[in-house]
Amino acid sequence: LIKIAFDAMGGDHAPKETIRGACLAIKESPEIEIIFVGKEDVIQKEIASILPNSHPRIKIHHASEIVDMGEPPAQAFRKKKNSSIHVGLNLVKSGEADAFISAGNTGAVMATATILLGKIQNVDRPAIATVLPSQKGGVICLDMGSSVDCRPNHLFQFALMGSFYSKLVLGIENPRVGLLSIGEEEDKGNALTLATYPLLKESNLNFIGNIEGKDILSNTADVIVCDGFIGNSILKFGEGVVKLFFNFFKTEFKGSILSKIGLICLTPALKRFKKRFDYEEFGGAPLLGVNKVVIIAHGKSSAKAIKNAILCAEHSVKSQIVEKIRGGLAS
Amino acid sequence: LIKIAFDAMGGDHAPKETIRGACLAIKESPEIEIIFVGKEDVIQKEIASILPNSHPRIKIHHASEIVDMGEPPAQAFRKKKNSSIHVGLNLVKSGEADAFISAGNTGAVMATATILLGKIQNVDRPAIATVLPSQKGGVICLDMGSSVDCRPNHLFQFALMGSFYSKLVLGIENPRVGLLSIGEEEDKGNALTLATYPLLKESNLNFIGNIEGKDILSNTADVIVCDGFIGNSILKFGEGVVKLFFNFFKTEFKGSILSKIGLICLTPALKRFKKRFDYEEFGGAPLLGVNKVVIIAHGKSSAKAIKNAILCAEHSVKSQIVEKIRGGLAS
Repeated sequence: LIKIAFDAMGGDHAPKETIRGACLAIKESPEIEIIFVGKEDVIQKEIASILPNSHPRIKIHHASEIVDMGEPPAQAFRKKKNSSIHVGLNLVKSGEADAFISAGNTGAVMATATILLGKIQNVDRPAIATVLPSQKGGVICLDMGSSVDCRPNHLFQFALMGSFYSKLVLGIENPRVGLLSIGEEEDKGNALTLATYPLLKESNLNFIGNIEGKDILSNTADVIVCDGFIGNSILKFGEGVVKLFFNFFKTEFKGSILSKIGLICLTPALKRFKKRFDYEEFGGAPLLGVNKVVIIAHGKSSAKAIKNAILCAEHSVKSQIVEKIRGGLAS
Repeated sequence: LIKIAFDAMGGDHAPKETIRGACLAIKESPEIEIIFVGKEDVIQKEIASILPNSHPRIKIHHASEIVDMGEPPAQAFRKKKNSSIHVGLNLVKSGEADAFISAGNTGAVMATATILLGKIQNVDRPAIATVLPSQKGGVICLDMGSSVDCRPNHLFQFALMGSFYSKLVLGIENPRVGLLSIGEEEDKGNALTLATYPLLKESNLNFIGNIEGKDILSNTADVIVCDGFIGNSILKFGEGVVKLFFNFFKTEFKGSILSKIGLICLTPALKRFKKRFDYEEFGGAPLLGVNKVVIIAHGKSSAKAIKNAILCAEHSVKSQIVEKIRGGLAS
């Protein structure tokens, strides 16, 4: 059994949706045990409303505090040793659990995980790897906000960790690695990318050169590396563009009858589109570079997103992603 | 009369579309004279196919060479002194024209303009300012690819130049300036934004703090400043997202009858959407910080985009944007 410590209290829709998602995962996979971490009475009540009988693969581990979504990570670490994040990660540290998942305060998960679990040897900085929907399957981008002001060797390590993840967890045979830059030619970019390019070129990675912003989603590369400031800005900008689109449709729906008919006819297609490009399908973003499997789910995670994040954690543990990264960085 | 030197040879759809666009502008504004720069015979023939009689406000200035779209800017400057870009900018330098517009090689326009026209005193680096469509009107973002590895004073100068442009050319009363970062709080960001924040805060600008990627298009700020590497990556990523969206509609159109009916019903709405969010409406991106008005149009510019870029140049000259920036930076 793979034991997954699950932060039942983190996320905008916690605890109702998150607990529902975890219960979906337990039904779907017979090989996991979930340890719900958080306020025992709250968790018990929620689980009882979903599964009337006690489940042999569900455990509860009490944690009295909750880290707020806006709380500074360092403060959360220092002052809330009994938070669901802190307690959950300690279960992983002690070996009582194999992986930790949270949809709570990203910065706090990142900081607490790095301190409690430690970094894999030769990893300077952990990275948040987000799987983005592309024209065909998914592309993994890192770092998406964990490390800013990166140096070339950081990006190189991101490329290596991302390649392992793409291969082992996403099943891509020989993942193509791209370096995000502002021109395809080797001499286009900023100081960071210009210095990173030769490191990637001379490595054993399947490096395909620079990738421009317009090609992130066009299935040109399987792994895209960039500084966390840029990754985070791009990710959030993408959310803004999608929101603009859907706001437009909403406005139109209140408009002419013609538009209304059009939207009704398109509903099944738009649902397919949403399904294909929805973050929910991809579960969470792994925090790569720490000594155990840690998955950060989107703060707005629905039950389905949580379920997928848990299944992704199961897959990550099974594929020994941490051990493989450790081995890859040792050589 | 405002005299506009126009690169008739630059752009993916040159010379046909670009010349058609310039002819549209001359019809729309009675206060401009256009000097078409490029191969005389080609220009003459194209103009004749649009305007049968000679026009008193149209002139042609021969330039025998063309800078290719992929040509390195430094090489273009050194080796093609007779290119339409070089010759056109020299017309501005000598005072024979008040502004220059090109949809050609962006890097070459930028480099040649900076060398020939010189930078405004106290401007360290010129910036490409792109007007992005937002939920309500437009937001000006700079830099979008001209300057990478910026320092805090560069971003400060961008903010100042962008504010003048927003006020004088886009007509925003007291433009709100935002600093692109990865969190709204003052202490969130990278080394560059953390050092830029106090400069903006202590200035006379209407600084509203950090802006996240998701809020670029949500009308939170009127002017958004960032390093050119990030600006360019975001801009191109946005293009990629929009492309993905429209590819989806195209695929659906070939799909079920229901989707087909839906799309036909939605056609007027989609057209409105396209109009509102189309770069064509906003013409070109000014290169701010050089000693004259220079507008860089999108390489894929249609006739309409060119027309709007020319009208934007006229407005920029009339509003004395260069003089205002010079005055603002002197104090």
